[in-house]
Amino acid sequence: MSVKGTLYIVSAPSGAGKTSLVKALLKQDQQVRVSVSHTTRDMRPGEQDGVDYNFVTMDMFDGLIAQKQFLEYADVFTNKYGTSQVWVKSELDKGIDVILEIDWQGAEQVRQLMPDAVSIFVLPPSQGELRKRLTGRGQDDVSVIDLRMSQAVSEMEHYPEFDYVVINDDFDIALTQLQAVLTAQRLQRDVQCVRHADLLKDLLSV
Amino acid sequence: MSVKGTLYIVSAPSGAGKTSLVKALLKQDQQVRVSVSHTTRDMRPGEQDGVDYNFVTMDMFDGLIAQKQFLEYADVFTNKYGTSQVWVKSELDKGIDVILEIDWQGAEQVRQLMPDAVSIFVLPPSQGELRKRLTGRGQDDVSVIDLRMSQAVSEMEHYPEFDYVVINDDFDIALTQLQAVLTAQRLQRDVQCVRHADLLKDLLSV
Repeated sequence: MSVKGTLYIVSAPSGAGKTSLVKALLKQDQQVRVSVSHTTRDMRPGEQDGVDYNFVTMDMFDGLIAQKQFLEYADVFTNKYGTSQVWVKSELDKGIDVILEIDWQGAEQVRQLMPDAVSIFVLPPSQGELRKRLTGRGQDDVSVIDLRMSQAVSEMEHYPEFDYVVINDDFDIALTQLQAVLTAQRLQRDVQCVRHADLLKDLLSV
Repeated sequence: MSVKGTLYIVSAPSGAGKTSLVKALLKQDQQVRVSVSHTTRDMRPGEQDGVDYNFVTMDMFDGLIAQKQFLEYADVFTNKYGTSQVWVKSELDKGIDVILEIDWQGAEQVRQLMPDAVSIFVLPPSQGELRKRLTGRGQDDVSVIDLRMSQAVSEMEHYPEFDYVVINDDFDIALTQLQAVLTAQRLQRDVQCVRHADLLKDLLSV
């Protein structure tokens, strides 16, 4: 028997800093990878197929839906975004942890299919700071920012569905906390029993 | 409503390095304290009452047992050792985490009274290393060391009763892992909900 990886769902409103946190986590933790989503939208300059997204046609996407290949998927305006389960499951089988950066609706779909998934919600440190982060370079209309704020609130209302809550005030502290969730998960007795079966046998054989 | 501290049980065989790990953890984490046990044994040179132990007479100890004041207690040869629940509960009420350094039998008693306690078992990295650590300065008889080894095994056989297993091979890694268990616990949604009630109210009130 070998150790299976853990599936993590990381959700947050825009402006909470989720993507930067996950990126920094991947840099320091070699046992975790992030899932690359499938999308039907066009590739933008600088993007790489298979790195930023797996770019597919609408027909291919619908075919994957029909084959129940997605852990979760969503329609965003005229495009579709989804997480294929083939890659995720093969990583987990190798003992690699996998992070899905998805919204609360995706999280809900994933929990149905993978009830052992561990979910983490990232929050900004205050309403004022969130507004500041959503204002960007100050080139946007107040009404646009208000819309972003209300979308952020709609997302944040779902934090109670998550196992852990990380508040991204100081980036380094939030990163340490995110890492702690993954580290603690790997120390659970049942996980350690499998990972260190030989050691345990050796220790108890005196 | 205010956040309650978490009670941690840390157990290990002699030679696993539990005491050094807990000492280092206390130094870096201001939100956790270790419980000082009551004992009927004589104070040794260099020990301080209330710091190393709460030194009490046999009559006082028996009185505390009769009053059900102990979370756990044990007879070790002709002396008694125990954890008073008054101090532990008052720290937890203040939101301070408390560590009990006790053996598997004490752990069993504590779980009965405080089922929310989180328990961590510390293991040495190999049988050879354990023997080395138990050999000390090499002044002891093989038979004495063999006895210590078999006592260590009796203790280690109970690791499956614990929530987390930390292997103390590299001290700094083991310390990081121990800290991660405490950090992750504090990030659980229900804990964060209470600790950051005002922030959550602010964020969702846009």
